[in-house]
Amino acid sequence: MDTELHKTETKVFRQQWIEFIYTLQDKICKVLEAVDGKAKFQEDAWERAAGRGGGGLTKVIQNGNVFEKGGVNTSVVYGHLTERMCKVLQIPFLGSDATWFAAGISSVIHPLNPFVPTVHFNYRMFELYDENGILKDRWYGGGTDLTPYYLFEDDAKHFHQTFRNTCDGFDEKLYPLFKHNCDEYFVNTHRNNERRGIGGIFYDHQRAGEDHDADFWFGFAQACGNAFMDAYIPIAEKRKNTSYNREHKHWQEIRRGRYVEFNLIHDRGTLFGLKTHGRTESILMSLPPTVRFEYNYEPQPGSEEDKLWQVCLKPIDWV
Amino acid sequence: MDTELHKTETKVFRQQWIEFIYTLQDKICKVLEAVDGKAKFQEDAWERAAGRGGGGLTKVIQNGNVFEKGGVNTSVVYGHLTERMCKVLQIPFLGSDATWFAAGISSVIHPLNPFVPTVHFNYRMFELYDENGILKDRWYGGGTDLTPYYLFEDDAKHFHQTFRNTCDGFDEKLYPLFKHNCDEYFVNTHRNNERRGIGGIFYDHQRAGEDHDADFWFGFAQACGNAFMDAYIPIAEKRKNTSYNREHKHWQEIRRGRYVEFNLIHDRGTLFGLKTHGRTESILMSLPPTVRFEYNYEPQPGSEEDKLWQVCLKPIDWV
Repeated sequence: MDTELHKTETKVFRQQWIEFIYTLQDKICKVLEAVDGKAKFQEDAWERAAGRGGGGLTKVIQNGNVFEKGGVNTSVVYGHLTERMCKVLQIPFLGSDATWFAAGISSVIHPLNPFVPTVHFNYRMFELYDENGILKDRWYGGGTDLTPYYLFEDDAKHFHQTFRNTCDGFDEKLYPLFKHNCDEYFVNTHRNNERRGIGGIFYDHQRAGEDHDADFWFGFAQACGNAFMDAYIPIAEKRKNTSYNREHKHWQEIRRGRYVEFNLIHDRGTLFGLKTHGRTESILMSLPPTVRFEYNYEPQPGSEEDKLWQVCLKPIDWV
Repeated sequence: MDTELHKTETKVFRQQWIEFIYTLQDKICKVLEAVDGKAKFQEDAWERAAGRGGGGLTKVIQNGNVFEKGGVNTSVVYGHLTERMCKVLQIPFLGSDATWFAAGISSVIHPLNPFVPTVHFNYRMFELYDENGILKDRWYGGGTDLTPYYLFEDDAKHFHQTFRNTCDGFDEKLYPLFKHNCDEYFVNTHRNNERRGIGGIFYDHQRAGEDHDADFWFGFAQACGNAFMDAYIPIAEKRKNTSYNREHKHWQEIRRGRYVEFNLIHDRGTLFGLKTHGRTESILMSLPPTVRFEYNYEPQPGSEEDKLWQVCLKPIDWV
């Protein structure tokens, strides 16, 4: 293919991806504000430090009726490839004149009410270019997962069914694979392999190949990103007015402690961001607003708290 | 030296070190209980899983008048050397028939009152043996550091002066070196190099050598361990009845968030423990009881909160 044509095409593709993440960010923030009814997202546009390209748009909601703290962030970043970066990304070093480009949307929403689950999603595209600006590699990653504090089987099934349906519209092999990935990824290995929540889907390093081209994976990310509305919003609406007491809140804060442990000890995205001089406040908006760490805390066997804990210890096939 | 005599001597030395850490643990718990006046330490003796040698004694205090959560832990552990372990310890691999031994005491105390500082200390000895049980290497590490939420210069000076005096009794070169180490170690590099607190002393990999023999470093650890009583207790006594309001507590919980970030992202001891299958509940007793993470929180310039923050951003020579 003609070099200039190739460059134009990848530029257009990149631009479409950027438009997708900004559009999704805007749409999800509006929907969450409608559910909340009080708090509004506040925006922080930021740029990377001198010598580092790109920036992002952080949107944060705090102290709402429904959402105690949450963020929906986009970032569009690029730069010259470093050996350290290749090591972290587990890819071969192409030389320091090569460049990389990454753009994604990520979100964590921590509700006030312990009966409304915390939700997280992230959809990203990563590209590598050689010293002439020719695209050498491109891959996609993403996923959406749910962290309830109390287990409602109907909610768990609804959440997973929504993503199963979305995946099945693309390729029926994807949901079982990405559901399994998710159960294997969000694990506190230092806590007897306790999961962060009840999972969802998770994928990484998906490339154009024999089965699927780049447009497929772009479309898949769009569909999964948009499925947030169907998967999460009905659950938030259904549970947001459930009355709760101090014991419920206490348990939520204990479980939030596990969320903190996973994100700071194990989460590749968090550690990658902090190590590559990402914007700390945007990365750590994922941490819950109030948290408790108690020595040796375990719920009463057979209690509602224990019921949730058990499905974190042993993932369930919900659909 | 005769092999059997050598083995007996190292065994006696090891035994004395173990007695030192258990004695110190007992003494410090009694003193802290006296300051608290209500809560008592609860004990958990634990053993490592099958195939891994040793165990420890975890002592935890919770919901006291003065101490909201705290632990004073000892552990005495040993096993066969693995390549992974050598990598983490940054030492050469001696072969898998070689063995290691480690014993130490570590403590973190989180007071309820935001005017009483959090304190941490840790004193440990590490030994390596060849396949014949002959001692090949032995080193010491340790330190004590203070994390106030409000700055009282008198307290900061008293704390540092106590450790300066202790160090000077051994070698006047030690305090400046170990104070500097401490300032360089407890750093949230992802937070613009903000320190966890106002420091103290910190040392690692101290071996018998030209200047000092093993008995010197043993005696030094004993003296520093015992200096806890003089360094911290008067501060806790002086501040424990200071009245405080919700804003003070809020700031304490924000700063505790930084403590969590340091311990889970950066602290070598915590990550080493979790990676080498240490007892999770004993390791993570260091996490504060209640914590807040707020997006982009910064204290008002010129406020008492800001005064503390500024000395965390720029370490001070207190004595």
